[in-house]
Amino acid sequence: MSSKDKLTYLALGGAGEIGMNMYVYGYGPVGKQRFILVDAGVTFPDMESTPGVDLIMADPAFIAERADRLEAIFITHAHEDHVGAIGHLLPQLQAPVYCRAFTGLIAGNKLDRAGQDLNQIHVVGAWPETVTVGPFEVGFLPVSHSIPEASGLVIDTPAGRIVHTGDFKLDPSPLVGDPYEPAVLEKIGAAGVKALVCDSTNVFSPHPGRSEAEIRPAIEALMKEAKGMVVATTFASNIARLKTLAQAAHASGRTVAVLGRAMNTMIQAGFSSGVLKDFPPIVDARDADEVPRAQLFVLATGSQGERRAASAQLAGGSYMGLSLKEGDTFLFSSKTIPGNEVGVARILNQLSEAGVDVIDDSSGLYHVSGHANRPDLAKVHELLKPANVIPMHGEHRHLRAHVALAAERQIHGVIAPNGTVVDLTGDTAAIIDHVETGRVYLDGAQLIGAMDGIVRDRIRMATRGHAIVSVMLEADGSPIGGAWVETLGLPDGDREEIGALLERALEDALGKAASRVLDSDEALEKLIVKTVQSEGQNRIGKKPLVTVMINRFDEE
Amino acid sequence: MSSKDKLTYLALGGAGEIGMNMYVYGYGPVGKQRFILVDAGVTFPDMESTPGVDLIMADPAFIAERADRLEAIFITHAHEDHVGAIGHLLPQLQAPVYCRAFTGLIAGNKLDRAGQDLNQIHVVGAWPETVTVGPFEVGFLPVSHSIPEASGLVIDTPAGRIVHTGDFKLDPSPLVGDPYEPAVLEKIGAAGVKALVCDSTNVFSPHPGRSEAEIRPAIEALMKEAKGMVVATTFASNIARLKTLAQAAHASGRTVAVLGRAMNTMIQAGFSSGVLKDFPPIVDARDADEVPRAQLFVLATGSQGERRAASAQLAGGSYMGLSLKEGDTFLFSSKTIPGNEVGVARILNQLSEAGVDVIDDSSGLYHVSGHANRPDLAKVHELLKPANVIPMHGEHRHLRAHVALAAERQIHGVIAPNGTVVDLTGDTAAIIDHVETGRVYLDGAQLIGAMDGIVRDRIRMATRGHAIVSVMLEADGSPIGGAWVETLGLPDGDREEIGALLERALEDALGKAASRVLDSDEALEKLIVKTVQSEGQNRIGKKPLVTVMINRFDEE
Repeated sequence: MSSKDKLTYLALGGAGEIGMNMYVYGYGPVGKQRFILVDAGVTFPDMESTPGVDLIMADPAFIAERADRLEAIFITHAHEDHVGAIGHLLPQLQAPVYCRAFTGLIAGNKLDRAGQDLNQIHVVGAWPETVTVGPFEVGFLPVSHSIPEASGLVIDTPAGRIVHTGDFKLDPSPLVGDPYEPAVLEKIGAAGVKALVCDSTNVFSPHPGRSEAEIRPAIEALMKEAKGMVVATTFASNIARLKTLAQAAHASGRTVAVLGRAMNTMIQAGFSSGVLKDFPPIVDARDADEVPRAQLFVLATGSQGERRAASAQLAGGSYMGLSLKEGDTFLFSSKTIPGNEVGVARILNQLSEAGVDVIDDSSGLYHVSGHANRPDLAKVHELLKPANVIPMHGEHRHLRAHVALAAERQIHGVIAPNGTVVDLTGDTAAIIDHVETGRVYLDGAQLIGAMDGIVRDRIRMATRGHAIVSVMLEADGSPIGGAWVETLGLPDGDREEIGALLERALEDALGKAASRVLDSDEALEKLIVKTVQSEGQNRIGKKPLVTVMINRFDEE
Repeated sequence: MSSKDKLTYLALGGAGEIGMNMYVYGYGPVGKQRFILVDAGVTFPDMESTPGVDLIMADPAFIAERADRLEAIFITHAHEDHVGAIGHLLPQLQAPVYCRAFTGLIAGNKLDRAGQDLNQIHVVGAWPETVTVGPFEVGFLPVSHSIPEASGLVIDTPAGRIVHTGDFKLDPSPLVGDPYEPAVLEKIGAAGVKALVCDSTNVFSPHPGRSEAEIRPAIEALMKEAKGMVVATTFASNIARLKTLAQAAHASGRTVAVLGRAMNTMIQAGFSSGVLKDFPPIVDARDADEVPRAQLFVLATGSQGERRAASAQLAGGSYMGLSLKEGDTFLFSSKTIPGNEVGVARILNQLSEAGVDVIDDSSGLYHVSGHANRPDLAKVHELLKPANVIPMHGEHRHLRAHVALAAERQIHGVIAPNGTVVDLTGDTAAIIDHVETGRVYLDGAQLIGAMDGIVRDRIRMATRGHAIVSVMLEADGSPIGGAWVETLGLPDGDREEIGALLERALEDALGKAASRVLDSDEALEKLIVKTVQSEGQNRIGKKPLVTVMINRFDEE
């Protein structure tokens, strides 16, 4: 390595937030660095800030502008916040995609739906197998998480080794995939780790994480005690959990049915990639209503309260001919993601109305997290002995707490939220630059910029209502008829329609307007907007958004 | 009492949800019953379901239509979900309002702002003092909660006694207000309680509730250990907590400042009503920046992440000349209400970026709830020995769990969500009718119906965007010029503006349209909407909401 070569880390998404992961590693002389991209994830929109938007992803501008120097894209695992953007962004990046087999199936689905070439995906075996792209040698280290074949990346460069954990936990008995083996981490650490770039999600969870195997007995006991039908929901991609639930049901004499497209797709991917074994027989969902209730177990999509998923439909009445009633049991074997509480509570209450016994995650008996807790993170620091810790996959407060945790072991940590360029070349990581980052939205079929104003206009229409004013004027500037006002999202006044009130106010204002105002589109529009907003405020206490359409007739 | 007289309970709001409490008790022959109303609260809007709305309250139609038989309104305490609607609804109800002194100050504020006569408020002392209105004799029983002078109601009627708890906890050392005394409840129960209408908020909390006094030592220790400024936030109306925090600060040698209008108002109401005593001296907020950081304690509004409150402004930079930095401490002495997690996390992360140590409610050390937990509810069942329990102040699942809890003591319970009329005349309460209930929205200055379609249109504009089409036609039906399209909240197409794309599609469609279509406003509008939505779907994957304005010119 030359003295000019730099090894750098940069998060475009995922650091300073939980979601839309996208990380860039660079190696080489500044301005001529070669790059790899790790993950291309999405985050989900909400009515509060992103109404009408379908998906949110990190703005790839930094790497898209340097796509000629992008060697490859590595996907750590198949969760949406790591792989969800690949179909939408790959056209701008034009680089080979490396991942493990199960991840490749899901990524392939996404490329397929976006009309992309599936040959861009290259499946790689587990570490110590590696792929060499430019100055980077990258291996997929199997880790436990809540989806099969989740991987950390061991990234070797001329300037040293980086361990990028992806999402992980330390599970000695994960049911699906390889168990946690301290010796493997120790071996990887023994070669010297320059930087540990590490999941921070659960840094505030004080107790060691629990294994997937630990919840099996409680779930089985619940299945045996339940008198009626049992339905359970969890993330569709949590194949280990699906297996835990289905095996517990089978052991308690229940027949297993699966409701919801996402879950059926994931189970099929589990079978076809070979990661899912020993799954009990599944009865066709259309035949499930013929199984006696006390012998039926249903796996259903929709653990986050999604309105169109199987759980919401079951709670709302029926789905595929099945409906729940007094004596049945519904289990949330999942955590409610912040922001989804209201949707989940809606389901809980609908089930309560039907007399169904609902068991949520508050007891901790039926769900374990897929992320490493605080003591587990400390354990990884200890085993890998990195020179530096760069926390990722966390909000700012998680990154900050994770740096403080590293400091307890005298490990240097850097808080590096999105856009922070960290130099990993020397012994002590240091911030050397900040680049602009942002978000792009998938909106229908288009990618739009978060700052384009499109979504801002939607929010304004939704909070203030919308008044549309059409006026026609003769060539000499005299109005033809009165102004025509249509409104959407506005209440009426005390005694009269708001449209009529606004039309009268405009008639008055236009009648009094000077001819220099009537002759100028700009001045006229200003007068109309001001009149509508002031009359709106006056009559109904609202200043609507105003769209003005001025038609002028030429003299013929 | 005659054999035709019935004693009835009906929730218009607050049963089957947490918020907008409003309960009706009736006594007399059906069709001629006399009524009292208990509470007139609000719930808060969100972008998801109620964009642009200012407040949500229970539809008072049932009682407004019977206002001539409404004897009085009783307000249990001054929280917004119990008193917030009084100024907006009193004009329809026209009945005297009874409450305790502190509640009267807050209710008076609301009437004043709504331009109502303050003389409608009548202040009542604590039980055993009572007020007799028609067939009802009502006493305000002091209970502990998170606001001063919270009260349950002891309602005596010819058919027996009802205890309506309001919001309460069992606190032997509440700091503000009367302590919990089992003997008082026992005495009230000894006379025979026909129905206990009871708060259900914390029925899922398995451990006995803790007293306000219990958190004082931890808070004082935190104040003493903190090196820089300490800021704490909680609900402005939680005057006992403000006192706990301020006294702990004072004991650790800190000067107290109060930031935010709501908190200053509440503290003033506490002083002027006499409920707040022994509060340490308060320094004027404008002089707070002259106090050395290590000796300053700031109480700030905004525990729920409200964007304009003092906490959000401090987190975002500065407020009243104060700003937070490394070494300072920020304490959330409050619970985050479901739905507010995202706003609170925004503050947590901004403070983290500034290097401030944030302490949230996850440890349970610095906050206690104002509601009775499961064992406390059981204790009240035991002390009052009611013939029936009617759970209220809870979602359906809370009501259901509370009925199950009553059943453990062989007490008959009735799940009676909003609109359920329960007959309390006999020994066993029974559902005898269902009436229509709903919500009304305060929208700017107007009250609108939830089902009016106004908010639905806002949501559609926000999720789908809005296209406005103006066309002009000659009297013979031939279009003058092309269609004019303005759009709001829509992205452009791949290579062209969406407005231009839609105008071209409309030119094409209008050119091909039969004259019977061009001659009919209805048919023409249909064609325009269809054309715009199909072109939108085709070009940008979105079907916008369409407003059509057709101008036809008469022959002159």
